[in-house]
Amino acid sequence: MDIMTTVNGNEHVKHGLVPMKNSKLLQLKVDHLYHIALDTEQHDLQTMFGDVKFVCFGGQVSRMERFTSFVIQELGLQPGTGDTPTNYAAGTDRYALYKAGPVLAVSHGIGIPSLSVVFNEILKLVHYAKCTDVTFFRIGTCGGVGLEPGTVVLTEKAVDGAFQPFLSTTILGKKVQRPAYVEKPLLEELLSCSENTDDFKTVTGTTMCTDDFYEGQARLDGAFCDYDEDDKMKFLNNVKANGVCNIEMESLGFLAMCNHAGVPGAVACVTLLDRLKGDFVSTDFSLLKSWQHRAQKLVLRFIKRRITQQNRHKNG
Amino acid sequence: MDIMTTVNGNEHVKHGLVPMKNSKLLQLKVDHLYHIALDTEQHDLQTMFGDVKFVCFGGQVSRMERFTSFVIQELGLQPGTGDTPTNYAAGTDRYALYKAGPVLAVSHGIGIPSLSVVFNEILKLVHYAKCTDVTFFRIGTCGGVGLEPGTVVLTEKAVDGAFQPFLSTTILGKKVQRPAYVEKPLLEELLSCSENTDDFKTVTGTTMCTDDFYEGQARLDGAFCDYDEDDKMKFLNNVKANGVCNIEMESLGFLAMCNHAGVPGAVACVTLLDRLKGDFVSTDFSLLKSWQHRAQKLVLRFIKRRITQQNRHKNG
Repeated sequence: MDIMTTVNGNEHVKHGLVPMKNSKLLQLKVDHLYHIALDTEQHDLQTMFGDVKFVCFGGQVSRMERFTSFVIQELGLQPGTGDTPTNYAAGTDRYALYKAGPVLAVSHGIGIPSLSVVFNEILKLVHYAKCTDVTFFRIGTCGGVGLEPGTVVLTEKAVDGAFQPFLSTTILGKKVQRPAYVEKPLLEELLSCSENTDDFKTVTGTTMCTDDFYEGQARLDGAFCDYDEDDKMKFLNNVKANGVCNIEMESLGFLAMCNHAGVPGAVACVTLLDRLKGDFVSTDFSLLKSWQHRAQKLVLRFIKRRITQQNRHKNG
Repeated sequence: MDIMTTVNGNEHVKHGLVPMKNSKLLQLKVDHLYHIALDTEQHDLQTMFGDVKFVCFGGQVSRMERFTSFVIQELGLQPGTGDTPTNYAAGTDRYALYKAGPVLAVSHGIGIPSLSVVFNEILKLVHYAKCTDVTFFRIGTCGGVGLEPGTVVLTEKAVDGAFQPFLSTTILGKKVQRPAYVEKPLLEELLSCSENTDDFKTVTGTTMCTDDFYEGQARLDGAFCDYDEDDKMKFLNNVKANGVCNIEMESLGFLAMCNHAGVPGAVACVTLLDRLKGDFVSTDFSLLKSWQHRAQKLVLRFIKRRITQQNRHKNG
């Protein structure tokens, strides 16, 4: 049975499939997922990706590649034939796409527009592959606000640079607003994966998502800066007073798209610095790498627990 | 003489230097250009990049690498020791940075936020390297509106998805608007580089710059789509009626930042499809590559002419 062409939205949900939000896709003979160099004609997406349950997005290609190796090792999977995991989007250098058992790891670049392009194509891939019971994650880095560097922040809701809790986007020339929050049960399940013995703290809070790293985040060291240290600190203290724990550049788009797609989605980011104390990210790259690993570790614990539950369910 | 620490903005301009828009940079002991993995302490930026006159930005790493090889060949420069041009930002995989004589080629990823991060750091690099008489270009790809695919569009001004001719960005929680246009003499100089014998057309016009590739550009084949073919065509015909020749995702940020920086900047993009006729980019990759080459060819003619003028000026 070709579910794509025979069932409606509700039936999709009943089967655990991601709801289809654009029925016009059903009329396409071939769909080219142009920016990840895959299509529905030349690639058997269901065979390649049908068992995916967890889609993990992150900014950099190298980080998602290392994450994939980590997943392979931790889930005791058979590594591929090469030294490094296979990049399924190797036909382009815009994004990279790795797979380790039920885990798909995707690079999204910097900022919401870059994320939005690959998110659309990955969501379509998950449809075409008929994946069921899928959860999306963004695993990233960020600036903390009043937190010790190296802290993992789980986003409750995301706001833009003017504290609006929705993605504001333009469709057919008109502004559209899409809310950006994490469902409470998912947030709590992820938070419960932190352990007392962790050498880092995991907290939940609001994430501020900006369209720029320098002026957009009140840094003093960009090429442009029309404000001074006092203005900056006044703004950052206001950010903190509004419950914002961390600042990055994708969570708002990620959660708004997850919400709009009807896909459970969560964001785990590690803070690389405390913005109340400065603007510079450390250049101790081995320290940064070990911090980046923390958010990955947390999400991998979540994945392992879910796999155990699923196996119990299957065998019970 | 350390110009950075001894001259003010006006003196900068007199020397042909890019005006310094953030005087707080003068107080930094070291500036880490974090996302391109260069800094003012470990790298002698003036020796490495002081002769740069043309900074060419483009989305993909591979395209900017090929462009660099093309420049090396066309300017009769000595190629480096490796098979491919040296990536000066090899310490990170966020962006790539190549150099061929007076030409710096930079990848910017997809969307304004991704561009904005690297633009800030390249602008600072150009300051620290004390480059003089610098011109910035974005050489890209786009969707055309009522143009034959393969046409090169030179942007006169950029507008956002709601036809606003400025970048709207948020600084310290407040909206700021920055106009995004190309200075007429630069546009005309670039247009005059097209030749009657070219096997493609070069036109000038307004560029629409959106924050999304699918809904943001009225495509019917994204993961989300709450409008139909009629709505789409009504919108695109309105886009055309407003003088828009092409649609892409970076020109508005690029020109707004060039204008704000006081750096001459222009945008040359090749259309990969006519949006009045469809949503799909061709998957004939060798055709796409040959089209991408057209905008590069035009900018390289500009560069060659300028070099000839500079040499004449020097020798006369």
